[in-house]
Amino acid sequence: MAVGLNHPVDILPVRGVELAAACAGMYKKTRLDSVLVSITPGATSCGVFTRNNFCAAPILVARNHLAETLPRYFFINAGNANAGTGERGYRDAMSVCETLAGLTGISSTEVLPFSTGVIGEFLPVDKLCNVMPELLSGLKDSNWVACATAIMTTDTVPKAVSRTLEIAGNTVTVTGIAKGAGMIRPDMATMLAFLATDAAVALDVLTQVLDYAMARSFNRICVDGDTSTNDACLLTATGVVNMTPLADYGGEDTIKLRDAVTEVCALLAQSIVRDGEGATKFVTIHVQDGRDADECLAVGYAIATSPLVKTALFASDPNWGRILAAVGRAGLVDLDIAGVGITVNGVCIVENGVRSESYTEGRGRAEFEKEEILLQVNLGRGTMEAVLWTCDLSYDYVKINAEYRT
Amino acid sequence: MAVGLNHPVDILPVRGVELAAACAGMYKKTRLDSVLVSITPGATSCGVFTRNNFCAAPILVARNHLAETLPRYFFINAGNANAGTGERGYRDAMSVCETLAGLTGISSTEVLPFSTGVIGEFLPVDKLCNVMPELLSGLKDSNWVACATAIMTTDTVPKAVSRTLEIAGNTVTVTGIAKGAGMIRPDMATMLAFLATDAAVALDVLTQVLDYAMARSFNRICVDGDTSTNDACLLTATGVVNMTPLADYGGEDTIKLRDAVTEVCALLAQSIVRDGEGATKFVTIHVQDGRDADECLAVGYAIATSPLVKTALFASDPNWGRILAAVGRAGLVDLDIAGVGITVNGVCIVENGVRSESYTEGRGRAEFEKEEILLQVNLGRGTMEAVLWTCDLSYDYVKINAEYRT
Repeated sequence: MAVGLNHPVDILPVRGVELAAACAGMYKKTRLDSVLVSITPGATSCGVFTRNNFCAAPILVARNHLAETLPRYFFINAGNANAGTGERGYRDAMSVCETLAGLTGISSTEVLPFSTGVIGEFLPVDKLCNVMPELLSGLKDSNWVACATAIMTTDTVPKAVSRTLEIAGNTVTVTGIAKGAGMIRPDMATMLAFLATDAAVALDVLTQVLDYAMARSFNRICVDGDTSTNDACLLTATGVVNMTPLADYGGEDTIKLRDAVTEVCALLAQSIVRDGEGATKFVTIHVQDGRDADECLAVGYAIATSPLVKTALFASDPNWGRILAAVGRAGLVDLDIAGVGITVNGVCIVENGVRSESYTEGRGRAEFEKEEILLQVNLGRGTMEAVLWTCDLSYDYVKINAEYRT
Repeated sequence: MAVGLNHPVDILPVRGVELAAACAGMYKKTRLDSVLVSITPGATSCGVFTRNNFCAAPILVARNHLAETLPRYFFINAGNANAGTGERGYRDAMSVCETLAGLTGISSTEVLPFSTGVIGEFLPVDKLCNVMPELLSGLKDSNWVACATAIMTTDTVPKAVSRTLEIAGNTVTVTGIAKGAGMIRPDMATMLAFLATDAAVALDVLTQVLDYAMARSFNRICVDGDTSTNDACLLTATGVVNMTPLADYGGEDTIKLRDAVTEVCALLAQSIVRDGEGATKFVTIHVQDGRDADECLAVGYAIATSPLVKTALFASDPNWGRILAAVGRAGLVDLDIAGVGITVNGVCIVENGVRSESYTEGRGRAEFEKEEILLQVNLGRGTMEAVLWTCDLSYDYVKINAEYRT
């Protein structure tokens, strides 16, 4: 089902990070469902979390722990989100951290817990604690893809990306994994992402690098307009590479690293859209010539969240009137219709707010029938732009989410 | 398909208003597709129009004409929205008005044009002008339901409602018709509504009555979160009843009329949701105990526009975690989860932000399986509330809007 998305290849280890995946029995069937990530002492880590008011218990714990100290372990489970579980949920997430801390001789605040899966059920803490010895003994630097597989829920393909770059004569690696397929929208989703680099990076610089990357990746995607209670993206810099830690956000080496992290994040974010629930099209929306980036984003999201546009995409129907209507309802002040243009894969559909004279239904349909669609909207009133990614709305989206439990 | 919606009965004429419906050939098949509404001289009329920046040509014309003088005729066609048609579209809408003005000996500014249907095609002006003599000779005060039928597009049931009230010893009638089934969301939709009363009402009071009613009806519904280029709601007061015109918005008689107009609008608005594209459930969302009405509305719309909530409703799946997640992403400042409660048809699901101890999956499913669902969300932090209406998201919604044109 996933659009142009293959099983990950050439995923590179990151020195200073070891991982393990195991089956804790979170699902009826036997499958990988729990992950341990071990981080070398001295590494810096930062994170971005869901802004949903109903954030899950593990998010609350992870945020508190990260504010207190640098993490040594991430413990992640699929199959249960530990969300909507109140105080007991918080205690359960703490128990997971405390048990792992006891087994490894560290403080429980050095453990960050993450959960994804069904909302409103209590976390089976015993199952997760029972699998910890197996996870601890299985830690390897080569287990990234296994872990990407273990955190999948409705995903159909594991998501992992690596890039390398040179910093001061050293080869630096950036590797990341992510999960997510539904509840996808800006400001995260039912999405988990974990990235690591072996570069040495000061914490404040690392935080800025992550913010920059988020605004060009995970915060620019939309499957269905919903956001989740459990979203989290973590970035770790182990500092194992022999280099002076990057301490200047504007420096040349930092920018190189920032761009590599952004590329990994963008590819992972796009993977999530490509694997969007029921997706049959991968759509890049590029809004140009707006007064500011915010209005470009508003137009992009109005298009990306429109069920009418998304069902037309599913049908390969060049129903550009629905795109125009979405642009028109994005809430832009004083938008002059006569300045708006729309192209699809370079074919001009709308010029000066009306159908282009060169446009034919046949040319439009030929482009809309493709799996990869670039939709460019020109607002004709400024110089700013925004790019985001979305997918179509198909029968299978409804099927997957209607979840007949007969 | 429509949920609990029957063919209209007992629709009452409004003295001072005559209507006719005919077939102008706007569709391949023979069906009613054009409507003429004739209004007695001296009547007051006001309107509310789409706020979509890409508003259609007839909206531009109708707004201009209404600002200039009181209307004597509404001319409405289905089958073509005359939207995204630029200057030619404007000229076409003007031509319709001018032709009718020539036939009836009035000014073209006394005609308001309305269109609904496909976007981006030029209006077949000749077909519409050709049918005008038939429409003029067919004007009757009893044609409300025929006209409600003629303006249908993807609607499956015509929508018409009447109410009567007593003002100063006179029986006053309020009758309205509406169309719309997709592209439905606040601030109107691909929706047309025409209401008339035989009461005598000063124009400024009539305008306030319509604003009041809109905020409790057409601006409180959501099928798919899209808004349209052609939305319009018109309210006419013919003043045929022998009474002193209502000139005080706060007066007792005005409030009686306002409440009757609001009831007609609310029933018509609910009809649109009941006939929502692919709808199998009719859902009333009642958000209570918010700090202000706006935040209650924001929560209501977050729920009503969530594809995850809507697909769960379709599946009769009491997936309350999705409702909680929607509440959480509505953007409320400082929302304390521990204060939130949710009930469905009176059955308590969530109490103090977690699953109620009395709740069982079986009790939830029994309520979610019903066609009519009342979802109450208590925010626990104020005294304000909001009510809105929505439907579920089904396979048929996708099917209807994917419009395979093979």
